[in-house]
Amino acid sequence: SGLVLVKNPHLDLMEEDVLYHLDLGTKTHNLPAMFGDIKFVCVGGSPNRMRAFAQFMQRELGLAAAGEDVADICAGSDRYAMYRAGPVLSISHGMGIPSISIMLHELIKLLHHAKCRDVTIIRIGTSGGLGIEAGSVVITDTAVDSSFQPRFEQVVLGDVVVRSTELDKDLAEELLACSRDIADFPTLIGHTMCTYDFYEGQGRLDGALCSFSSEKKLEYLRRAYEAGVRNIEMESTAFAALCGLCGLKGESCRFHLP
Amino acid sequence: SGLVLVKNPHLDLMEEDVLYHLDLGTKTHNLPAMFGDIKFVCVGGSPNRMRAFAQFMQRELGLAAAGEDVADICAGSDRYAMYRAGPVLSISHGMGIPSISIMLHELIKLLHHAKCRDVTIIRIGTSGGLGIEAGSVVITDTAVDSSFQPRFEQVVLGDVVVRSTELDKDLAEELLACSRDIADFPTLIGHTMCTYDFYEGQGRLDGALCSFSSEKKLEYLRRAYEAGVRNIEMESTAFAALCGLCGLKGESCRFHLP
Repeated sequence: SGLVLVKNPHLDLMEEDVLYHLDLGTKTHNLPAMFGDIKFVCVGGSPNRMRAFAQFMQRELGLAAAGEDVADICAGSDRYAMYRAGPVLSISHGMGIPSISIMLHELIKLLHHAKCRDVTIIRIGTSGGLGIEAGSVVITDTAVDSSFQPRFEQVVLGDVVVRSTELDKDLAEELLACSRDIADFPTLIGHTMCTYDFYEGQGRLDGALCSFSSEKKLEYLRRAYEAGVRNIEMESTAFAALCGLCGLKGESCRFHLP
Repeated sequence: SGLVLVKNPHLDLMEEDVLYHLDLGTKTHNLPAMFGDIKFVCVGGSPNRMRAFAQFMQRELGLAAAGEDVADICAGSDRYAMYRAGPVLSISHGMGIPSISIMLHELIKLLHHAKCRDVTIIRIGTSGGLGIEAGSVVITDTAVDSSFQPRFEQVVLGDVVVRSTELDKDLAEELLACSRDIADFPTLIGHTMCTYDFYEGQGRLDGALCSFSSEKKLEYLRRAYEAGVRNIEMESTAFAALCGLCGLKGESCRFHLP
């Protein structure tokens, strides 16, 4: 049916659903009227970038003059920022799996309550590239954990639950085809590694702690490259797992900063 | 000596240290002049609350009139917000272990470069209480993971490193003594459980996914209570581990929302 699935039998029994971190709710807002026509959701870490992206989309879609401001739909909360440009929502998710997970739970319920159909969700932003040219864009085929496995291990009430992290392969190919029209950005499809830590977790030598040698770091990154990893960031496994379980067609495109 | 320790031999070899997510650096800013006299750092998730806290501290310390604005020291970055009121820094850390970890790595390096001495760091904010009166404040003696163990398991280059999560017991007692002057907030010392997920991880029945029954949830929370857990949140194990390793006297005080 193309509807967004929630997999929670308790939700139907609730009189009201408060999407607390988005400052929205089923009794305080008419979610189908506000969001029923949404077809694309783009998410990224930084609120300023997601506002700039919504302004860019408004211009691209001919909806507003250059520089025209967009309103933050979640202005009552400082946890996330949300903007819309026609059928496109642009939302910030902060940094790391716990932060993006809270936003995705509430976004998925929002799209469900709003009765949205055939929604595509794309994660945009930056990441660290691995053995690729600076300025490249990596489209993720599979998100992998720090052991290079395509899985998201989540602790539910103290027990580890393992979830699949495959993303939509057709969408990846479609995005790669789009990239051929843009000469400036070398674009490739590859695995994206997701870590819980930016400094030691990604082999950075400039954190407050560093418990390994630069040789050990290089050896680890070489193994990651051989396993197919082309970029490293901090949200992709949770993003892939939640999108997959809730019937959202999802992809991740990340820019490797020069 | 009371100095903040960095445990990274590579740092001394670097010509410049850019604290990227704070928009500060050793070449662009005179960190000893800006921060050398800092004695307290208070951190919490929400940027708006940390601004309000800095304004409150300014009034309490007689440094400014009520309502006077404070400037965001990290205004060039939208990842975190930082304010100061006399010897007190007030910084937001976003939600979850990965987000607070990035901030703490850069904060610890900042305090180190600024040659700060005898710094106390206190995490403030809200959490979910467990078997305690709504409106209570929980001071953490030990942060525990979702198996109720006093440890922070961090993945470093694919290997799990286990770190201790004890906090400063003298500081906990000192804060408890302070609370006796404030009649409105019942205050107790207990264990704080840290999870990677807000919905399924903490036994909430209102996420987009819920793979357990309310009976299983109650049984898990009962076991947590019996293990000494009095509140649940998403940053304490990483906070305790990083403070402990870097010689920062740290505590966590969280308010259980009514």
